[in-house]
Amino acid sequence: MNSTEFRKMGKEMVDYIADYLDRIEERPVLPEVEPGYLRPLIPDSAPAKPEKFEDVMEDIERVIMPGVTHWHSPYFFAYFPTGSSYPSFLADMLSSAIGCVGFSWAASPACTELETVMLDWLGNMINLPEDFLAKNGEGGGVIQGSASEATLVALLAARMKTIKRLQSENPELTEASILSKLVAYSSDQAHSSVERAGLIGAVKMKTIPSDNSFSVGGAALKQALEEDKAAGLIPFFFCATLGTTPSCGFDRLLELGPICNEENLWLHIDAAYAGSAFICPEFRHLLNGVEFADSFNFNPHKWLLVVFDCSTMWVKNRADLIGAFKMDPLYLKHDHQESGLITDYRHWQIPLGRRFRSLKMWFVFRMYGVKGLQEHIRKHVRLAHEFEELVRKDEQFEICAEVILGLVCFRLKVKRPRENQ
Amino acid sequence: MNSTEFRKMGKEMVDYIADYLDRIEERPVLPEVEPGYLRPLIPDSAPAKPEKFEDVMEDIERVIMPGVTHWHSPYFFAYFPTGSSYPSFLADMLSSAIGCVGFSWAASPACTELETVMLDWLGNMINLPEDFLAKNGEGGGVIQGSASEATLVALLAARMKTIKRLQSENPELTEASILSKLVAYSSDQAHSSVERAGLIGAVKMKTIPSDNSFSVGGAALKQALEEDKAAGLIPFFFCATLGTTPSCGFDRLLELGPICNEENLWLHIDAAYAGSAFICPEFRHLLNGVEFADSFNFNPHKWLLVVFDCSTMWVKNRADLIGAFKMDPLYLKHDHQESGLITDYRHWQIPLGRRFRSLKMWFVFRMYGVKGLQEHIRKHVRLAHEFEELVRKDEQFEICAEVILGLVCFRLKVKRPRENQ
Repeated sequence: MNSTEFRKMGKEMVDYIADYLDRIEERPVLPEVEPGYLRPLIPDSAPAKPEKFEDVMEDIERVIMPGVTHWHSPYFFAYFPTGSSYPSFLADMLSSAIGCVGFSWAASPACTELETVMLDWLGNMINLPEDFLAKNGEGGGVIQGSASEATLVALLAARMKTIKRLQSENPELTEASILSKLVAYSSDQAHSSVERAGLIGAVKMKTIPSDNSFSVGGAALKQALEEDKAAGLIPFFFCATLGTTPSCGFDRLLELGPICNEENLWLHIDAAYAGSAFICPEFRHLLNGVEFADSFNFNPHKWLLVVFDCSTMWVKNRADLIGAFKMDPLYLKHDHQESGLITDYRHWQIPLGRRFRSLKMWFVFRMYGVKGLQEHIRKHVRLAHEFEELVRKDEQFEICAEVILGLVCFRLKVKRPRENQ
Repeated sequence: MNSTEFRKMGKEMVDYIADYLDRIEERPVLPEVEPGYLRPLIPDSAPAKPEKFEDVMEDIERVIMPGVTHWHSPYFFAYFPTGSSYPSFLADMLSSAIGCVGFSWAASPACTELETVMLDWLGNMINLPEDFLAKNGEGGGVIQGSASEATLVALLAARMKTIKRLQSENPELTEASILSKLVAYSSDQAHSSVERAGLIGAVKMKTIPSDNSFSVGGAALKQALEEDKAAGLIPFFFCATLGTTPSCGFDRLLELGPICNEENLWLHIDAAYAGSAFICPEFRHLLNGVEFADSFNFNPHKWLLVVFDCSTMWVKNRADLIGAFKMDPLYLKHDHQESGLITDYRHWQIPLGRRFRSLKMWFVFRMYGVKGLQEHIRKHVRLAHEFEELVRKDEQFEICAEVILGLVCFRLKVKRPRENQ
C-alpha cells in the first residue's frame, strides 16, 4: 500500500470510526456469540496474495462486530470505564506513524521529554506534592501500560531497596534469606493484580482486613506489623488503594502513611480508577496523605478520556526504580546517558520498547482543557448520585456502599429470617 | 470534539501522516536537540480552556518533530528495525475506536478469538509444530507487548511448574528453599531482558559461554548443568536465542533441546528479531529444534510490518502459563470461563488490560499476503548481502560475524602488534 492509497483508505477508516461511534447505541451492547464463533468465519490460514481493503472492511462488520462488547455504548455499565475520545485517537494515529520505540532518550528525545513534562502537567492538575515532579528534584513520572505493571514495578523497587538496606546493615545476610522473610501488605479489598505482584516478585503478600466502610485504617496495619515482626518477618511494602474495585472504598492514607514511613515500608498508592477525579478540587481531599507515599499511580485510560493504554505513575525518588532494574548492555548505550540530564525510561518499566503514548495526554489535555476534563468527571459523579437517589426511592433496593465517585453499589433488600419472625 | 469535527481532523491527520512518510528522508534522521530541549517550548501547565486542533498540529512541527529520531527514515540504521505499514496503522485506528479492554473472553469475544486464530495463522506461516497451535490441543499463542515480557512470563511459568513438581515429589520442601536453589541459563550473547527476567523472578540467571560463531551448543550447557547440580542447585530454565542482538547468532537448538527435555529445563526460545524471517522456507531451517521447546516468541513489530506493539508468543501447554498467574476475583468472573471453551488472556500476561492488537496482524497478513511479506524479508536480506559484499571489497574493513539475515557486523581492520613486527 502506498501513501496515495493510505490517504483514501485512512479517510474511509476515519468515517467508519465516526459512523461506528455516532450510532453505537443501535448495537446490542453484549454480543450474542458463543465461544468459538469466529474461527469458522474466516479461512484457516493467511492468504498467499494481497486482498483488497474493501474486503477487509466488509469483514469488520461480518466477523468482528458481532463479537465485540461495546465498551463505549451508553448502555455499557460493566467494569470501570475505559477512556475514549477523538483527540486521543488523533494522537495515537500520529504515534503509530512516528513509530519510534522510545526506550532511551536517544531513541527519540521528544518521546521521552514530552512524557516527563506531561506527567508534571498531570501531577500539577491533581496537586501532587512537588517532590513527585521531575522539574523539581529526585522524583518524576512515567507512563506504564497498566496499573498492574505500576504495582509490580513499585513492589520490585521496594524489594531491591530493602535488600540493599539490610545487606548494608549486615553484610552477612544473603539475598535468599532476606527474600524468604519479606512480607508485603494490601487491603482485603485491593485489586487482584496486587496479590499477583507478590506472586511474581516471590514475596509474601498479606491482606489487611478493611472496616465496614471498606477502608483499611492504621490500627489494622499496625496490628499485622507487630505480629509479623514478632514472627521474624520483614515488612517492606504496603499497597494502599484509593477507589477499590469492589466498592470504590478509600484506604485511610493519613493514618497509614506515618506508620509506613516509621516502619520503612514502601507506600504505593493504587488509585487506578479514582485518580482522575483528583483533578477536581472538591475531590482532591481524597488524595490527602499522598505526601507519605513513595509511589502513586492512576489510569488516565480509565476516566480521563485517554484511549488505552496510559497508566501514569509517579515516584518520589526515581533512583529507587532505576536501581531495581538498571542494565546497560553495549547496544543500548548512548552519549548522554551518564550526563544526569536525561531519562531512559527503559529502566522504569518491565518491557524495553514503548510507544509514544504521551502524545495522547498532550492532545487530550489541550483539546479539552482542564475545565473540560473536570466537567467530564463531574458529569459522571452527578449521574451516579442521580442513580443513587432513584435506588434509594425504591423500597426493593438498598445502597450498600457510600457513593463517592461514579460507582454505585446496590442490592436487592433481602428480608432476613429474624425479620420474618 | 464531536464526530463531525473528527471526520475533518482525522482526515487532516491522515494527510499529515502520509506527507510525513512521503518526505521523511528530507528530515535529519537524528535530532540535533540537547537534553531538556522540550520543556521550555511549551507552557508549564495544561491550559484551563480547550485549544484548537490547528494549534496542536502546528506544535507537532515546532515542538515534537525537532526531537524525533526518525526510525522509518531510509537513513536510519540503528538497532533492529521496528515495524511500520499503512495497513497496520488502519487496524490500530480501528482498535482505538472499538476501545475494548479484552482481558477476558466476555470483555470482548472478538478481541480474544481473533488473537487466537491470528496466532494459529502466523504459527502456520512459520511451520510451527502443531502442538503450539490452539486449534489442535493444549497449546496456543498470545500477543505480548514485548519480547521482554514473553521471556519473563515463560520464566515465571517455569518457576511455578518446577516448584509444584518438586513439592509434589517432596511435600516438606518449602517454596523459599526451592527458590533459593533455582538456576536459569541463557547465552552470554542473550538480550539484557533475559538477565532482567531472572532479577524480577528472584532466581539466579547464569550465562553459558558462546562459541566463536556466537552460538551456545550442547556441551557448554551440559557442563554448566553438571557443575550446578553438583553444587546442589536446581536448573529449571534455559532461554535460547535465535538471532542475538549483538551479532544475530543462533543457539544450537538441535543440541540444546534434547538436553533441556531430559533435564526438566523449560526451553524458551527468544527469536525477537529473526523470527519474522522464518515465514520464508529458505530460512525456516534456522528454527529447527523448536519441537523441543516449551515456549517460543518473536516480534512481528520488529520485522513483519506490524506497528509496535505486537510480540507473539506460543506455548505447548497453556495450562503452564495460566497456572503461574491465575487469579479469579469475583469482579472478573463470567459465565463461560469454566466451560473450557474459551481463553481469558489476562492469565497469560503481566498486565490485566489489553488492546485489540490482533487486528494489526489481520490487516497486515491480508493486505500484503504471505508472498508480499516474504518479499519484504527477502529484500532486507538481499540488501544486507549487497552491503556485505561492498564491505568485503574494502580492505580497510572486515566482516566479523556471518551475515545470515539483515544484520551486518563489520569493523575497521586493526593491525595487531605482532603483524607490525
